[in-house]
Amino acid sequence: MILGIDLGGTKSAALVLHEDGVVVRRVAAPTPAHAGAEALFAFLVGLAQQVRGPETLTGVGVSAGAPADAQNGLVFAAPNLPGWGPEGFPLAARLADVLHLPVQLENDADATALAEWRFGAGQGTKNMAFLTVGTGIGSGLILNGALHRGRRGAGGEVGHIAVVTGPEARSCSCGLRGCLEAYASGPSVTRIAQERGWQGEASGRAVVEAARAGDPICRGALAQAAEHLGAGLATLAMLLDLERIVLGTLAVHAADLLLEPIQQSLRARAWPRLTEGLEVVPAALGDRAQDLAALCAFAPSAPAPSAPTNGGTL
Amino acid sequence: MILGIDLGGTKSAALVLHEDGVVVRRVAAPTPAHAGAEALFAFLVGLAQQVRGPETLTGVGVSAGAPADAQNGLVFAAPNLPGWGPEGFPLAARLADVLHLPVQLENDADATALAEWRFGAGQGTKNMAFLTVGTGIGSGLILNGALHRGRRGAGGEVGHIAVVTGPEARSCSCGLRGCLEAYASGPSVTRIAQERGWQGEASGRAVVEAARAGDPICRGALAQAAEHLGAGLATLAMLLDLERIVLGTLAVHAADLLLEPIQQSLRARAWPRLTEGLEVVPAALGDRAQDLAALCAFAPSAPAPSAPTNGGTL
Repeated sequence: MILGIDLGGTKSAALVLHEDGVVVRRVAAPTPAHAGAEALFAFLVGLAQQVRGPETLTGVGVSAGAPADAQNGLVFAAPNLPGWGPEGFPLAARLADVLHLPVQLENDADATALAEWRFGAGQGTKNMAFLTVGTGIGSGLILNGALHRGRRGAGGEVGHIAVVTGPEARSCSCGLRGCLEAYASGPSVTRIAQERGWQGEASGRAVVEAARAGDPICRGALAQAAEHLGAGLATLAMLLDLERIVLGTLAVHAADLLLEPIQQSLRARAWPRLTEGLEVVPAALGDRAQDLAALCAFAPSAPAPSAPTNGGTL
Repeated sequence: MILGIDLGGTKSAALVLHEDGVVVRRVAAPTPAHAGAEALFAFLVGLAQQVRGPETLTGVGVSAGAPADAQNGLVFAAPNLPGWGPEGFPLAARLADVLHLPVQLENDADATALAEWRFGAGQGTKNMAFLTVGTGIGSGLILNGALHRGRRGAGGEVGHIAVVTGPEARSCSCGLRGCLEAYASGPSVTRIAQERGWQGEASGRAVVEAARAGDPICRGALAQAAEHLGAGLATLAMLLDLERIVLGTLAVHAADLLLEPIQQSLRARAWPRLTEGLEVVPAALGDRAQDLAALCAFAPSAPAPSAPTNGGTL
């Protein structure tokens, strides 16, 4: 069994679970996100000690909602988790010292990509991308049957490739301009709808509901998001020749509004050789994604060869 | 020893060479590029039989200047090699039948990426991109210590990701708009200089020489190419967290004019986390690149761990 830690900007959880994904025990608490690194560390140790039981554990997997250097076990400051500092906090080594277990950590986008690949909508592939489309847009890449880590476990920043150039490109909170995230994250879609005169609640979910009810401003903001998401997927397809792209969060909640226009935009911006047979599907794990991501952070083994269990090309 | 075949749109060669890259014998002839698939095949068989000697050969590597499906040994029609047809010609299997040797083929961008990685400017890396910037812009990706092939050995199409969006985006010969290749290939730079009033010889080399001599139109066209090349590299860096990017062809001939502005543009369009320590270097193999590419198409083994032999960050 594995001890999993899901570190989020709002809420964190610790859990004991079997390697096949069955959860034995789980505790959760609000993250002291704006406390310092030592307070955050003590909070996670507390959660882990609270959840530990009589089971023999083989290791600890940490899915971190912050930039991470998986190879060196570091987490870095993020806007919603500033405490770790810019030089990186050695979370894996510090947890291993206290818990007396081997610890592996992954950025949550990478960990969720592994979880969707092993247990969810990515099963059976060797080359897939998982995109989370929520407060931010991140991704994890499975290439040639393994998580792509690159030089230092960074990369996968599909939310910050430019999808609009020139003077009209929107500024992104990251400091660059024209980023996909500046058009297609939940907050960006909401902001764009508001700029165009929408007066409703300032949340991605409210914009999606209004669009479903026919509000033209919200429909327009989501159509623009879908168009730019398709452009981001086209870049992934042209560079990486993927089998499947799994879309999470907003793309699951609003699949009825987004998936078809995302596909259209993708196919208009990439060669048929690279889009024929390329499946674009919603994530399948739902509420289990974060728990399984923590598991997969420790045990990123290849899935048994198996046919895809999800629906195929949309 | 290996039999190498370098299939180009203008000229092809066959060679016998040692696995360490030393060439024993070499023959070359103009490619009957506009003949049909069977005539092209007979031409390559002729070259191979001409170059064969008493040496015992372990296999045949083909570096193909055409889209290729390495896994299935197919080559496809390209604008400068239309003969192979759109469904793909089973070149590897057909050659193996006639030559009685195992045959492996790669697209030339992938094969040259392997050659630069094993013998040239990519030595010592685990994550690198090789870009050829010539008549077209192609790339080969070495990810996690192996050639990235993707679903069917396509991908690497960095020349056809959009670097300009909106109504002013140039049309690309591939049918898409705003592609990097429409701004930064040799023919595109030449065309852009001509549109801006340049009256000199219509060749990339002439534009480079005029820019070196101070011609403002040619300098401007090359500056624009460098800016967009930097944007393409920024996308690679943000997605793949590379250690090194190796630039061939135009970027070697005009390294004095292009490398510094390419780097500036890259750093303006990607996060410091992903560009710090990222080396952008010219290709190192020069005239040997094509021969070694044919070798590496057959023997794409990992290089022995070794320190980089080239100059490091420019």
